Order: sequence, then C-alpha cells, then structure tokens
Amino acid sequence: MNLGFIGLGTMGTAMATHLLRSGYTLRVWNRSSGPAARLQALGAQVANTPAEVAQDGTVIAMLADDAATQAVLLDAGVLAAVPRGGVLINTATLSPAVAQELAARHEARGVDYIAAPVFGRPDVAQAGKLQILAAGSADVIERVRPLLETLGQKLWYFGEQPARANVVKLAANFMIASAIEAMGEAATLTHGYGIEPAAFLEMISSTLFAAQVYQGYGKRIAQRQFEPAGFKLPLGLKDIRLALQAAEAVRVPMPFASVLRDSLLEGMAHGQEQMDWSSLARTIAQRAGQG
Amino acid sequence: MNLGFIGLGTMGTAMATHLLRSGYTLRVWNRSSGPAARLQALGAQVANTPAEVAQDGTVIAMLADDAATQAVLLDAGVLAAVPRGGVLINTATLSPAVAQELAARHEARGVDYIAAPVFGRPDVAQAGKLQILAAGSADVIERVRPLLETLGQKLWYFGEQPARANVVKLAANFMIASAIEAMGEAATLTHGYGIEPAAFLEMISSTLFAAQVYQGYGKRIAQRQFEPAGFKLPLGLKDIRLALQAAEAVRVPMPFASVLRDSLLEGMAHGQEQMDWSSLARTIAQRAGQG
Amino acid sequence: MNLGFIGLGTMGTAMATHLLRSGYTLRVWNRSSGPAARLQALGAQVANTPAEVAQDGTVIAMLADDAATQAVLLDAGVLAAVPRGGVLINTATLSPAVAQELAARHEARGVDYIAAPVFGRPDVAQAGKLQILAAGSADVIERVRPLLETLGQKLWYFGEQPARANVVKLAANFMIASAIEAMGEAATLTHGYGIEPAAFLEMISSTLFAAQVYQGYGKRIAQRQFEPAGFKLPLGLKDIRLALQAAEAVRVPMPFASVLRDSLLEGMAHGQEQMDWSSLARTIAQRAGQG
Amino acid sequence: MNLGFIGLGTMGTAMATHLLRSGYTLRVWNRSSGPAARLQALGAQVANTPAEVAQDGTVIAMLADDAATQAVLLDAGVLAAVPRGGVLINTATLSPAVAQELAARHEARGVDYIAAPVFGRPDVAQAGKLQILAAGSADVIERVRPLLETLGQKLWYFGEQPARANVVKLAANFMIASAIEAMGEAATLTHGYGIEPAAFLEMISSTLFAAQVYQGYGKRIAQRQFEPAGFKLPLGLKDIRLALQAAEAVRVPMPFASVLRDSLLEGMAHGQEQMDWSSLARTIAQRAGQG
Repeated sequence: MNLGFIGLGTMGTAMATHLLRSGYTLRVWNRSSGPAARLQALGAQVANTPAEVAQDGTVIAMLADDAATQAVLLDAGVLAAVPRGGVLINTATLSPAVAQELAARHEARGVDYIAAPVFGRPDVAQAGKLQILAAGSADVIERVRPLLETLGQKLWYFGEQPARANVVKLAANFMIASAIEAMGEAATLTHGYGIEPAAFLEMISSTLFAAQVYQGYGKRIAQRQFEPAGFKLPLGLKDIRLALQAAEAVRVPMPFASVLRDSLLEGMAHGQEQMDWSSLARTIAQRAGQG
Repeated sequence: MNLGFIGLGTMGTAMATHLLRSGYTLRVWNRSSGPAARLQALGAQVANTPAEVAQDGTVIAMLADDAATQAVLLDAGVLAAVPRGGVLINTATLSPAVAQELAARHEARGVDYIAAPVFGRPDVAQAGKLQILAAGSADVIERVRPLLETLGQKLWYFGEQPARANVVKLAANFMIASAIEAMGEAATLTHGYGIEPAAFLEMISSTLFAAQVYQGYGKRIAQRQFEPAGFKLPLGLKDIRLALQAAEAVRVPMPFASVLRDSLLEGMAHGQEQMDWSSLARTIAQRAGQG
Repeated sequence: MNLGFIGLGTMGTAMATHLLRSGYTLRVWNRSSGPAARLQALGAQVANTPAEVAQDGTVIAMLADDAATQAVLLDAGVLAAVPRGGVLINTATLSPAVAQELAARHEARGVDYIAAPVFGRPDVAQAGKLQILAAGSADVIERVRPLLETLGQKLWYFGEQPARANVVKLAANFMIASAIEAMGEAATLTHGYGIEPAAFLEMISSTLFAAQVYQGYGKRIAQRQFEPAGFKLPLGLKDIRLALQAAEAVRVPMPFASVLRDSLLEGMAHGQEQMDWSSLARTIAQRAGQG
Repeated sequence: MNLGFIGLGTMGTAMATHLLRSGYTLRVWNRSSGPAARLQALGAQVANTPAEVAQDGTVIAMLADDAATQAVLLDAGVLAAVPRGGVLINTATLSPAVAQELAARHEARGVDYIAAPVFGRPDVAQAGKLQILAAGSADVIERVRPLLETLGQKLWYFGEQPARANVVKLAANFMIASAIEAMGEAATLTHGYGIEPAAFLEMISSTLFAAQVYQGYGKRIAQRQFEPAGFKLPLGLKDIRLALQAAEAVRVPMPFASVLRDSLLEGMAHGQEQMDWSSLARTIAQRAGQG
C-alpha cells in the first residue's frame, strides 16, 4: 500500500521506519532534509513539497504542534492535494479546537479526517507497539484499521468527532505531569526528614505505583538527571496550556493543571528550557531550599 | 512466640488473624469487645486491659490515629507495662511528631520502638502480603524481622528514626489522593467533550497508568460508586492535614496537597462524610456542573 | 477640535458625551445605531462607516475587546483612513500582544498609536474624572494631553511602549478580582462562626480596607446582590485569562490569578454568566455549603 | 480605676502607656523585666508574678500567641487569682479554639471573658486610636466600654461568643496577606513588561486601592525593603495557619489562604525569617527570575 508521511521528527521517523519495514511504500516529507534522507536509505521516496505526499490518497501527519500542522496541511497545500475520498490520519498532539477546524476543512473538501494521537516513546513506535487514541468516522477507521494496527499494539476508539482523541491525549499528558508533581512533592517532603529521594521513589514505584510513568520519571527525579530531555519542559507547558484552554471551553476548573502551569512557568524562568519536564521536581525541591 | 496485639479494627483484625494462623500466640485487646471475641474463636487470648497485652514483651499496635495511640499506649498504661528490653511495633498511620514523641518516651523507659506502617487492604493483610515501611533501630528490626516478614511480603527500611516511616506513609497517601484528583480532573475534562468517564479511565489505567491505585479508584470514579467507602473521606482529609503539618515543620511547600485539602473540605461540606475519599472526583465534576 | 470616536458602549458613550459637553466636535460610529443616535442629539455627527471617523486625524477608540478592536481598526479600514501624522488613542482593555501588534501596524503607516485604558465607571467618565493609564510616545502624549486631561482627572504615564498601559490595566483588574476573592473567603470563614457577612465586610471596609473597591464590592457580597451586573463575570474571566497569558509570555507565575480563573470558570458552569463578577463570593460560599 | 496588664511587647507597652497617660492605675507584668521597668517610670506598679496583676479584678492581656496565653493565664495562675465577678479582656490574636476554651475556663470560675483583638500599629495604640474587635457578653462589654473606648477610637461588636472576635481578626489578617500577594503578583507581572514596581504600586495605591494597607505595604514592596520587619513572616505564617485551621473546623475551603501558606513557607525556606511578611513579594518575584 502507498502512503504519504509528513513530519519526520523523532517520533515520525520511528513510525515511518516501522511502516517501511512492515512493507508499506512511503512518500515522505519533512521541513529539514536530513530525516527524509535517512528514510530514503530505508526505501522511502522523498517528496519535494508537502503537497506531493498527498497523491496516493492516504496521508499520515506527525507535526510538532497546532501551528506547524496548520502551516503544512492548510497553507502548504497538503489538503488541497489529497484526492477526494482520501484520508488524512493526524497523529500529532493538537488542541481540540484546531482538530475540529481541520476536520471541518477536510470534510468540506471531501477528504476524511482521523485523529490518532499516540502514547509511546520512539523505541516503542519503531517496534509498532504504540497505544493509539483514535476518533473520527467509524467507517473510515475500519478502512484504515490495518494501517493503524501496524503502527500500534492497541486502538482505543473515542467516537466520531476527531477532537475527542485530542482531548484524551491532553488529559493523559496532564495526568503524567500530575504524577511528576506528586512524586516531586512527596520526595521533597520525605527528603525533609532525611530520606533519600531514591529510597522513597523506588519503594513507591515498586508498590502502589508500579507503572511505567512512575518508574521512568521516578528514576530521573531520584537521580536529578533532567538532561538530555525525553520531553522538554516547554513542550510540557504547551500541553498543560492546551489542556487548560480545552477545559475552559467546556467550563471545567482544573486546579491541579493550574498548579502545574505555574510550576512549569517557574522552571522556564529558571533556566530549565532544555531540561525534561520532570524537572518540575527540581522547582519543587528548590522552593523548599533543597538542591 | 507470644505477642500482644492492640487495636482490632478491620486492618488489625486481619493482621492478627494471619499471625494466629501462622502459629503465633496472641494476647489481644480492643476498645470494643466484638472483634476480640472473634479472634478468641481463632485461639487468641483476650486481655482485660491494654496493659495486659504488654507482658510478653513484644507488642504490635494498630490504633486509629494519633489521639487513640497516645491514649492507649501512654495513658492506658501499655508502655508502663512493657518489660525493659521489650519492643513496641507501631503499624498505625501517625504524624511524625507523635511518632517522635512516642519513640522518645519508649526509649526513656528502655523499650524499643519500631514504626512499621503498612500498605494493603484487609484481604492483603490477611494473606500476609502487606508492604511494610519500617524505621527504627536496625538491630531491633533484625530481631523482629521474622515477625514482620510474616505480616508482609516485603520490608522497606527507612533508617533509625521511627518518624521516617510515618512520613513515608503520609507521603504515599498524599500520592494516592493526587492520583484520584488527577483522574477526576482528567475525566471531567474529557467528559466535557462527550467521552464517558469509564472509557477514558479504562484506557488510561490499562496503558500509562496500569497500577492498582488507578485501576481500583478509576473504577469507582467511572461508576460514581463512592459507597460503601473503602477509606472514608474524613480519614483522607486527616492524612492530607498530617502531610501538610509534617511538611510545614520542615518548610516544604506542597501546592498539590493544599488543593487536595481544599477539595476534601468541600466534600465534607457537601455530605460526603460517609463516602470514599475517591468522591474527590464528585466534587470536581460538580464544580464543572457535571453530575 | 475635531475628533473621531469609535465604540459607543456604556463607557464610550459616557466619554463621548463628556467630550461633546466640553466643546469638542465629534464624529462618531458604533456597530449598532442606537447609541450613535443618542449622541447625535447632543451634537455629534454620525459616520456611516468606521473609516469615516478617521478623517480628522485624531481618533479615540473604546471597543469591547481584542477581536472587536482588530475587526474595526484593521479590517473595517479605520487605520487605512487615518491621515499620516494622525493619532489613534485606544482606551480599551486589550492584551499587550494585540496592543503591540496594533502599535506596529500604525507605526508602519505613519500613524501614532497611544494606549490609554481607564479606571472608572460610566458616571465617572461622564464627569471627566477617569484615571488614565497612558503609554506611547511621550511627544505624542504631550500633543494630546489637553484631550486626555478633559477625559480624566489624572494621567499616569508608563513609557513609550503602548502595551505597557494595557498590562497595567490587566494587573489592576487582577487586583480587583483578588480583593473580591479575599473578601469572599474571609466572609465565608467568619460566617462559619455565625457572623453576618454584612457585619464583617462593613467593618473591614471602614477600617483597614477603606477603599472604594472594597466598599462597593463588599456591599454586593454582603447583600448577595449580583444582578444587575456592573461588570459581568465572563468579562472578568476574560481579563484574568489575558493577565495569565500576558504573564506567561514573560514567565511570571501568578498563583492567585490561577485560583481566580478556576473560580470564575466554576461560576460560569453554575449559571452566573449574567451576574456581576463579584459573584465569585457566591461560588466560595457554596463550596462551604453556605447559601 | 485600677487595672492589671499582662504582656508588654511593643503593642502591649504602647497600650499600657496610653492607659497610664489617660489616668488609669496599672499593675503590670511581663516575662522579661525591661518593659515593666520602662512602664514603672511612667507610674505603673510592677507585679512580681502574673497572678499579682489579677487582684484588682480587671485584667487586660496582650500575649504573643495561643501557647503564651495559655501558659500565663492558666498555668501561671492569673485566672485562679482573678476575683469572682472580675473580667479578663484578651486583646491577643488567638485561635478561636483556644479563645473558646479560655472563655469556658473563665466562666467556670465566675470570671467574665471578653475577646478584644485590635487593629493598629504601636503608634496608633499609643494614641488610643486602635480599632477594637470585641465579642463576649454585651453586658460585660457595656461595663468595660469606657476602658475599651480609651484604648480605641472605635469598637466593633461581633456577638456573645468571644471566639468570634478572634476569627474576625484572623480573617482580617488573611485579607492583608492577600493584598500583599496580589500586589506582589501584579507588580511582578508589570515588571516583566519593564514597568518599575514603584510606578505601578504608587498608581494603584493612589487610585483604586487608596487604603493604608496598600500604601504601606506597597511602599515596602516597591523599595524591596523588608527589614526591619513591622510584622515578621513567621508570625504571618502562624496567622494564616490559624485561619486555615479555623476554616477547616467549619468546613470552609480557602484557596487563597492555601496559596499564602505555601508562599510564606517558601519564604521561611529561603532565609526570610527575620523579614517583614510583605517579603511574600520577594518570593513571588524570585519565582519569575526577577530579583
């Protein structure tokens, strides 16, 4: 099957690599040329313009944010180039408002639009083991199910409105940030009584919170190792901001999200822009005069 | 081995039952007589006064809170009755301040004092599978290790000062409450976009947060089933208050804990006293006009 | 002197009325025609299009918000119609980001741009007693000083960048909301001990807080009289949102503003859209089960 | 008239001085002897024990806090020494819980108990211009009205239960702290746009917030002059803690108070123990990387 793939950041590259290895024929495009060249070596065709990737009628997009997505899909002509009856599968983390607008713009041109943001790091993507949060027409999703099931180990379906998958993704990222903040506060409290953060965090993530989010970020917090970043703090701040905006649109107060926003902003003001967002815990410790 | 056991609430009864079945000889006491009678049927001796349980030199206490613990151990004469060289193993969730005072009072009388709060519900206790957070003299803990390892599947050691185990327990309970609040806010946000809480919470607790805390409380939140309570809201408020006080003593700001306190208090003001503390999610949903 | 005046809401009408009575010749425009007709009766000329008001080279704008301001000044052609060397005096409460953009757009066309948001209710405006927060070129402000001093009793100057006056206005509105929230929490606390809100609020606004903000809003809170609104809750929420966005742009955490946002949002979710923003106090009391 | 006066800190000394100058005969006691000696020079009799001041049947107490008050009035025998039918006028800032206990203890011995906390700095006290918040038996207050009206310019009466006056005082102090925090956040926001805090704060405290609290603390914040302290940060933290405890007892969530607690605690962790509590603004600015 022939596909277009737009957006070859770390995640996009991993996903495209897995698709190539699984037998798909890919036409790829990226703003900078390095990543496309690497995929060419694996058999991908490299498009000269974003619009070129649209010609086969099925396009996967994994762009950085709302603005990049709008710029490439709308302004750079991808949507205009997708044949009627084609489908755009958007795997990026977007605001529901922009997702809704994109869905409407695609519908107006007779192109199907599926939101399919994902959970999983690049190595998980490269192994085809992502969790996929999907929303959009059930019929269309059935049509592209083999493709989605190549990308991910499991498909979670949230209904006909694509924006729903995007709000689920934002809610999940909010929950990760909340887990980081909770670990940070708890470790700072216990450290105030002389307990090494590593001792507390290892115990908690082996018992009540034996889940990957706690184990992975718990380790970073225990070791105060926030660089190199897995997910940079400004990206975390952006997602919390999107969650707060999405919540405001439906009148949902989110006091934890408000605390997170303030704390991430404090990190931004203290040189943590290149750090992982788990450096939230650094901000918390510093407020207590630790570290 | 002969032991005293004081405090036969649901947890205490489950722990004592397991000890009896494991071959320990128990002298038990409880404020009300029903639970003691049930243990008598399993072979326990029933003491007429708290002090009587102290005579064999090893006492386990599982009392409700700071006040009950002080009343029974100090005022009702348990400590005075423990022979010099004996040991008191306190498994209750206490404030570090009271733990510290108890430790000092025991030391002054030549009695060892071990803090050993636990994680696990009554069925886990009855199976001897608790997680035990221990602090106190390492030598003494070695001495009672067989007993602790009968009670629990794993022993986590946090150092010589007993209060440390208590602050770890409070920090852990704070993390559970934070997980509940985060689920509540996330489910309310996604519900604002038409997604059933059950759909969101099942996904999140099967993927990123595949841990018992999320699965168990996630189910309650999804089903809005807050009664009968597993852990009542006022007890949750008490533990958050103790965490905040413990944090204040070592100058650690805990903004998430402050949010939790305010939300639990709001639940208290709206008839949730008999509900499970996961009814935090009810308060959050009501603020958004849901439910 | 001949002036254009755009935006005849309650405040705009009051300001324009005062200018007419002070001897200025006004050409006015408003989206709906009623207010313009009333000013015509006082001697104003009514323009058929926004652009028409620009012809005399000095324009005062008092439009509702960022969007209305951009729509009228940019899209509807006011800026294009102001002669080079003319001046636009913008008295609306805008975001600093939009103010900055407007200033740049005006500069590019050789038109001076002054930000001059104001404090004061319509009756104060009609008496020419506003407080004026001004920013922009000092020379230009000197040039229009007689006009500004007709509008207001006092001019506060905050520097050459127009956006500064806008951020000052947002900061001031944030402080008003904070005063309302503080009164609401304090009155709810004391009411919990049986003290009538009126008794507490009268005392506090006669002693430590003998300022108009406390006296005016204190009375509303004491009497639970939130309708008709002086300043509607959704407008308050908008200003707090603008303050938070302005703060985020310069990396300033504002925890009080975050609390206010959550509380105002809760009011929105509970039917307070038509109420005064001091109905924040209603939300606070309801959380405590009062009222 | 003969009076006893206990507690000669800065405020107590100022109040006692004014009473002596107004013709009252005073028997005074203080834990340290210096202040008593200074009042002796003004004509006071110095008691050797707290109990001695009780003999004339009317006692004013101005002790530091709950603990000092309980220690002196109960443990050191003042209450026991007041003749039946006497009256204790307590002007300290106490928790309502302790006030209630003291009232009950006095009633049990046939001694009247009036709570009369005050607003005003020492110079205001020395001029007899305090604001007095009074609660207790209306008859008793009538009886001591001439004395109270000597101390203060105005008496505010809050009902028969003495604890009410104490909760009013805590609520007022909470409002002062909220005003400081609001100024701090607003000044940090505007400073982020290049506006000097002094410029913003002078404007705001001359216009919307032309009240003493804003003018006095606004000046300190503008000049970053937090030493010497007028009211030390740890005392502010204590009062916010008492407000939160009083609120918890009647189930009133106070999110602003929670923010204040966290911020004051952060100040404690960063060497602000000797600073004025308006150094809250320092904490806020530092979070934003200012200062």
